[in-house]
Amino acid sequence: MAQTPYKQLEQEWKRLHAFRGAMAVLRWDAAVMMPRGSADVRGEQLAALETEYHALVTAPRVTRLLDRAQANTAGLEDWQIANLREMRRQRDFAIATPVALVSRLAKAASKAEAKWLLARESGKFDDFAPCLEEVVHLVRDKAQLLGQARNLSPYDALVDEFSPGLTSAEIDAMFKALARRLPGLIRDVLVRQEQRPLLPITGKFTAAKQRALALEVMKAVGFPFDRGRLDESEHPFTEGVPGDVRVTTRFDTTEPFSGLLGALHETGHAMYDVGLPVEFADQPVGRDRGMALEESQSLLMEMIVCRSRPFVTYLKPLLEKHFGVSGPEWSEENLYSHLTRVRRGPIRVDADELTYTLHIQLRYEIENQLLSGELAVRNLRDAWNSSMEQRLGVKPQNDLEGVLQDVHWAVGSFGYFPSYALGAVMAAQFFDALRESVPDVEEQIARGEFSGLMGWLRQNVHGQGARVSAQELLKLSTGKPLSAAAALRYLETKYLASEPVVGSAAA
Amino acid sequence: MAQTPYKQLEQEWKRLHAFRGAMAVLRWDAAVMMPRGSADVRGEQLAALETEYHALVTAPRVTRLLDRAQANTAGLEDWQIANLREMRRQRDFAIATPVALVSRLAKAASKAEAKWLLARESGKFDDFAPCLEEVVHLVRDKAQLLGQARNLSPYDALVDEFSPGLTSAEIDAMFKALARRLPGLIRDVLVRQEQRPLLPITGKFTAAKQRALALEVMKAVGFPFDRGRLDESEHPFTEGVPGDVRVTTRFDTTEPFSGLLGALHETGHAMYDVGLPVEFADQPVGRDRGMALEESQSLLMEMIVCRSRPFVTYLKPLLEKHFGVSGPEWSEENLYSHLTRVRRGPIRVDADELTYTLHIQLRYEIENQLLSGELAVRNLRDAWNSSMEQRLGVKPQNDLEGVLQDVHWAVGSFGYFPSYALGAVMAAQFFDALRESVPDVEEQIARGEFSGLMGWLRQNVHGQGARVSAQELLKLSTGKPLSAAAALRYLETKYLASEPVVGSAAA
Repeated sequence: MAQTPYKQLEQEWKRLHAFRGAMAVLRWDAAVMMPRGSADVRGEQLAALETEYHALVTAPRVTRLLDRAQANTAGLEDWQIANLREMRRQRDFAIATPVALVSRLAKAASKAEAKWLLARESGKFDDFAPCLEEVVHLVRDKAQLLGQARNLSPYDALVDEFSPGLTSAEIDAMFKALARRLPGLIRDVLVRQEQRPLLPITGKFTAAKQRALALEVMKAVGFPFDRGRLDESEHPFTEGVPGDVRVTTRFDTTEPFSGLLGALHETGHAMYDVGLPVEFADQPVGRDRGMALEESQSLLMEMIVCRSRPFVTYLKPLLEKHFGVSGPEWSEENLYSHLTRVRRGPIRVDADELTYTLHIQLRYEIENQLLSGELAVRNLRDAWNSSMEQRLGVKPQNDLEGVLQDVHWAVGSFGYFPSYALGAVMAAQFFDALRESVPDVEEQIARGEFSGLMGWLRQNVHGQGARVSAQELLKLSTGKPLSAAAALRYLETKYLASEPVVGSAAA
Repeated sequence: MAQTPYKQLEQEWKRLHAFRGAMAVLRWDAAVMMPRGSADVRGEQLAALETEYHALVTAPRVTRLLDRAQANTAGLEDWQIANLREMRRQRDFAIATPVALVSRLAKAASKAEAKWLLARESGKFDDFAPCLEEVVHLVRDKAQLLGQARNLSPYDALVDEFSPGLTSAEIDAMFKALARRLPGLIRDVLVRQEQRPLLPITGKFTAAKQRALALEVMKAVGFPFDRGRLDESEHPFTEGVPGDVRVTTRFDTTEPFSGLLGALHETGHAMYDVGLPVEFADQPVGRDRGMALEESQSLLMEMIVCRSRPFVTYLKPLLEKHFGVSGPEWSEENLYSHLTRVRRGPIRVDADELTYTLHIQLRYEIENQLLSGELAVRNLRDAWNSSMEQRLGVKPQNDLEGVLQDVHWAVGSFGYFPSYALGAVMAAQFFDALRESVPDVEEQIARGEFSGLMGWLRQNVHGQGARVSAQELLKLSTGKPLSAAAALRYLETKYLASEPVVGSAAA
């Protein structure tokens, strides 16, 4: 009894899923565990697996099976038809990029990531620039080819790979709407903040204690530690596959928040992955719907949930327990002020949610220029620093505070950054709808209960996998199209609304 | 310009080497880092890679290229001709074992390893037995097929896979020679030891301090930490590829030696891998020459080098430095007595070099019985315990001290254990020749210098890769065939010779 074309394709993608999972472990290991000198060896390994993956997706047999399965979808469910569409999408992307290019890019990215790590020790962008140049060159070739194949501009083709269906036009419109209001809002908030000085929070917060705190909060949120880990790395990230999700953060022992919030940002990603539809776990339709949605989940967690009054109510006794602290600077009011402090700083991952978008816009513009060739890698540092000064009014004191802060470009992730801004916008839309559906969600959070939050997200976002586009998913779950309006309303309310009352939301 | 068949084969094996390295990282991760619940996911990943590896080695194209390359070796160097022989060997092994079996065995082993880890927590063999039974069943099928293809008994076929060319006949002869002398020797040594009581060494030795000590000694030996790591795992092991070698040990905080010696045993393996011929790093002829030789290197390091008077001279100040200890029990004489203490105990990895062989003989006999079906897995614990009592006069107090102590069978490594006994015998032969060639090697070791030792090993063992058989390599480097004579002479001299004089060898 021969299997249907659809079933045969499911088998193929089960195997591809295993390859993908293996590559995820190799990448995680490279960033967290691998000895520095082994980057060349790891590069060969990843390149070999990428090459094989590419060969499997582009095999003539897969195309034939796809043609047959899509020609006759009678008897298939909606999810299965969507699965075929996603398979076709992956196949089309792979066909458009020749294996030699894929392999060279994998090797160059592996080398560049290792050099980036070294450069973060030396603090010198110049140590890293030649490797980055090679990556840019290869990504440019890839963007050209993908763009031709999918009838998109080269940059849009890269965006489309990360966030299917989203375009520069939508991104530009979003930045335009945000740019109209944000600079003024930031100015107003800074003036307002100056009138209410913070009590400084100082001390030594060991990595071990911060880790214990992060683990306790992650557990409350529902992170499955029997199928996941928390580690430390230069740059926080989430890797792995559902069933083995690996989250990292980095701990700054001089303050207690950035490590925790890094871990919770990544937990937002992880919970998305964990909540994907189990019955399609090893199929394309069972994957997340792109990076903009991924970032909507991490930013919803980090910015909207964790930098809120109810969360502070939950967090305060945990800080006392793990750090043994007390005093007026640890009051809910002062903690909340710290977590919502707006500051024009040079580091994206430490940025507040008001200035964050400006960091992204800078990267969006610079990576467009790098790819078009308008900006050479050798001039990147200067371009970065002057754009940072002009946009945020801050001057990076060194390359670590500047162009060396993100790993994305090293690993070839051009077209990724807009996802953060799109994600922030989507997160505000989701939370609006969520609060309507779970009216006591904030009271729950104040009690350390995250089931209302996660239940809604699982049903409306995570559990949808890649069944529909991000834009459709947004409409289905919130009733509204993509728009910066909710985000701006959320920011105005949070940062400029009437005087805060201690514990008001958690009453 | 078409590449020669040989060059094309080199390219194929370069890719296979990358796959092998990727699988090594996945296995290391599974034992050291992976969340327990993710074993099923990892099993799928390893099975997918094993399957692909198998498909690549058995591809008709590889056979055609091998036929062409071996038909005309004009213009090839000795190393390249040996490389072809090793490629053929790998291809023959792979052809003999169908891919479905390889894949099922990989999955079963992955599951069994995870269950073994859990069983080591619960202490119950019964939790692990069903998984082991599945592995035994599959290994039995594999041994049958390999034996038929290579005209060997099923068990010899498994031995041959680990230690090419070695047979049960040689193993039996070795055990016979050892068994003639060892029991009497052990009795004599125990009597002698009783007349010289040890000063007990007690205290709390934190894992962090033990780790720092192990790192310092490993560095002195030459372990390349820019391309390697030391971690902790249930059972010490070495994984990875040259260029990324991963060593593990386990620390017992109630005593300072087993963790260090575990790490150094594995460092013996690692240095072999690190010293393999670089120009053939990604080729079959550039690999180690089987597990008996591997164990010769680990046992030479752990038993002959590290449990010696010169090493104690080097170690004593390091113990004082890392543990802040002093007093008569930390004298060279008392330390040496501890490191050479003979004791009839239940645990192989804690065994002294006199009783060690008895542990191996037990496993050798039991695994033969398991594979032949003479012994059922459900009776394994009883068989183990009664054999242990009869052979070593000790009764395991629980399964952790008994049948649950080794990971080998869980991961399907049947036919591996004899390598330890063969390795011990070879190690003594190597050290005889080494001392002749580097007469001051022991004075060097007493000063913490390991270059004479490692230089000889690199030239005569490590750097030879898989160019010749283990037996030939032994003859080339020591002038003698495989024989237990050197090992017995070494043990008699070390354990029964005239009264030890403090620092004699290190004068």
